[in-house]
Amino acid sequence: MGKLARKVAMVGAGMSKFGVHFPHKRNPDLWIDAWLDAVSRVDNGIEPKDIDACYVGNYSSDLFNHQGHLGPQMADLVGLVPKPAGRFEGACASSGIALRQAVLAIASGVHDVIAVSGVECMTELPTTGVTDVLATASDSLFEYPAGATFPGLYATLASAHFHKYGTTVEDLMRVGIKNHANGAENPYAQMQSSIADMMKNKIAKIEKSGGEVPDWKDEFDYLKSSSNPIIAYPLRLFDCSLITDGAACVFLAAENVAKNFTDTPIWITGTGQGSAALSLHDRDDLTSFIASKEAARQAYEMSGLKPKDIQIAEVHDCFTIAEIVALEDLGFYEKGKAVEAIKNGETKRDGSLPINTSGGLKSKGHPVGATGAAFCVEAFKQMRGIAERNRQVKFDIERMLVHNLGGSGATCVVTIFEK
Amino acid sequence: MGKLARKVAMVGAGMSKFGVHFPHKRNPDLWIDAWLDAVSRVDNGIEPKDIDACYVGNYSSDLFNHQGHLGPQMADLVGLVPKPAGRFEGACASSGIALRQAVLAIASGVHDVIAVSGVECMTELPTTGVTDVLATASDSLFEYPAGATFPGLYATLASAHFHKYGTTVEDLMRVGIKNHANGAENPYAQMQSSIADMMKNKIAKIEKSGGEVPDWKDEFDYLKSSSNPIIAYPLRLFDCSLITDGAACVFLAAENVAKNFTDTPIWITGTGQGSAALSLHDRDDLTSFIASKEAARQAYEMSGLKPKDIQIAEVHDCFTIAEIVALEDLGFYEKGKAVEAIKNGETKRDGSLPINTSGGLKSKGHPVGATGAAFCVEAFKQMRGIAERNRQVKFDIERMLVHNLGGSGATCVVTIFEK
Repeated sequence: MGKLARKVAMVGAGMSKFGVHFPHKRNPDLWIDAWLDAVSRVDNGIEPKDIDACYVGNYSSDLFNHQGHLGPQMADLVGLVPKPAGRFEGACASSGIALRQAVLAIASGVHDVIAVSGVECMTELPTTGVTDVLATASDSLFEYPAGATFPGLYATLASAHFHKYGTTVEDLMRVGIKNHANGAENPYAQMQSSIADMMKNKIAKIEKSGGEVPDWKDEFDYLKSSSNPIIAYPLRLFDCSLITDGAACVFLAAENVAKNFTDTPIWITGTGQGSAALSLHDRDDLTSFIASKEAARQAYEMSGLKPKDIQIAEVHDCFTIAEIVALEDLGFYEKGKAVEAIKNGETKRDGSLPINTSGGLKSKGHPVGATGAAFCVEAFKQMRGIAERNRQVKFDIERMLVHNLGGSGATCVVTIFEK
Repeated sequence: MGKLARKVAMVGAGMSKFGVHFPHKRNPDLWIDAWLDAVSRVDNGIEPKDIDACYVGNYSSDLFNHQGHLGPQMADLVGLVPKPAGRFEGACASSGIALRQAVLAIASGVHDVIAVSGVECMTELPTTGVTDVLATASDSLFEYPAGATFPGLYATLASAHFHKYGTTVEDLMRVGIKNHANGAENPYAQMQSSIADMMKNKIAKIEKSGGEVPDWKDEFDYLKSSSNPIIAYPLRLFDCSLITDGAACVFLAAENVAKNFTDTPIWITGTGQGSAALSLHDRDDLTSFIASKEAARQAYEMSGLKPKDIQIAEVHDCFTIAEIVALEDLGFYEKGKAVEAIKNGETKRDGSLPINTSGGLKSKGHPVGATGAAFCVEAFKQMRGIAERNRQVKFDIERMLVHNLGGSGATCVVTIFEK
């Protein structure tokens, strides 16, 4: 793997509010929301004439919305036609791939500025339909007909981690508790409440109705109650990310033009992508993702950084177990040691390695094709020091990592940002 | 638009037999057929260890096969895991986009060798289902609910061309007659018969059954008979491309490693991509595709060539009218003048500008996601002088163009190859 022929910077980023928007908003509406939000964060302004191409990450508008060919459809919304416009797909890492391809396209010398976006409108289908569509990111000949949808696949991965490293349901719960606390500080997040507050609200509701008030000492008791039903053991409802409509947009620029847009570009100094067999039964190890390790290896090598150099990261917490595995695969902690660090509070906003300050997929929401680009929006805000409410970390960030996983780990894109 | 930071060559290309393969073969089987065929044409051999990434063009395995996430699925078939693997979508130009992104990725300096492929398995669905899926490449909010599927959309484009330039049904038929004559010389083509032979076979069949032998003087009479029913006026059955299962694969390499694979690399000296509004009703002109004109403009500019420098081309004849419009949009002929050139035989194999010697989508078949890569297979064979049977053109080819259109013209990728 070689070096980028020229440097690439992020000069703006934005997103739609994540949530349940259908039928009031569909892909085009969400995409425009993200576009306008991103435009508003380009210091010196940006116009369609400044942009060379439109890259759209999307998992399956085909099945969610019976609409393909999203590249030109989105480009046309803002006057980017007849410029190049295409769609990139790698399951939940779709806009991670779009981002990476845009970095390579700019480095190639052919394009100077690219609008990278991701969009997914999932709630056009009922929940069972969404589960069905997501399952097409697993092996539809072997895993899907056996009834293995995504909560089940990640439950298998969690069970393997429990077995090998002694990880517990409480360890999973700590991830959800942290990420909901972060999401409550993000006005763009789908869920706007910490789990502690949800518990208090639930108790107040029971009290008001005159029912028997449960004896919950802390969030763990609440999360072990019937308020948090088991989806696929050991995963409960609050171990699973959300079904979400949303879009995100990032503007990338070559080094020679980045200064036209801002005095403080954020450089992409590392990009890596890895793959794995779709089926879990074709893998050697269920407690680690080789796609993540390979993507991280490439990104670290390109940037010249090591895991210890990363100050803050957004990682792909589609299920709570996925955040734990990511922290280990990215080299932040040794295998089996991430849970201890989480327990010590190291990954909280005020910890030594803040993880998913955006709220993560768990609380911010997970419109699958938009997730990779939305991670970059948080990177932009944290590195600029403009994260809303109380979630801005207290130190100056020079180096941040974003980890975007697809399916049950068959695709991964890792991106390293530096100021 | 800038220049490629380094040169990129095609060093091998191959494809599966195009045809109706489901249920005997599905995407993975077709993809392996294409892979092995491409490997067999790399002079000095190529192995997975030589390849840095796997790019897959596919329109909608989601809807055709209820399977997404094709990038890693295909990469895993031949041991390319854990290298980067992704899917690229632009309707019928999906593998054209994959090709272009691979060119940019190699030029960026990050990758040296990429396997670019396209695959589509369409016959898992009945014909009505295929028509429905293809219609999702049009605007599914406005065009699709109005009943406008692709034969209807291209019939509209044909009618506009008839109205503005006096084009006739015979002009359309000449495209089909030529392309079927070419496809009969391509062992990989779905249809293996010229229209003249089909007519003779039909007459023989009628004679054998004791029926009244029709008074057909030539192919035009046959094509105006009930043997060639109207699909959407003015388009008849033989104006429409085929429903096909198939795959194609191309190996691209950076200039510094191309010589490891062959002494005679074929250089990609121009790549262009354009877009347009999805809906016909949002376009200013129905007799020309702005996406094609923009893609061609970029590719010519990058290569420094002009239309008159191109010696042979493969163009996107999803319907016969599309070949006529392409010849004009690519600058080979002035608007409204292509039909005269076709009538004069200029676009035949022995003409001054051979077009679709492979048989085109019309006769070779059109597995939509594979089509862009399959065009390159014909470019490889013609430029190497190894096209099968009697379809090799008689002059030495230095410069060839490939034109890949998506949907009703909302995406276009143009690639220029030089020896």
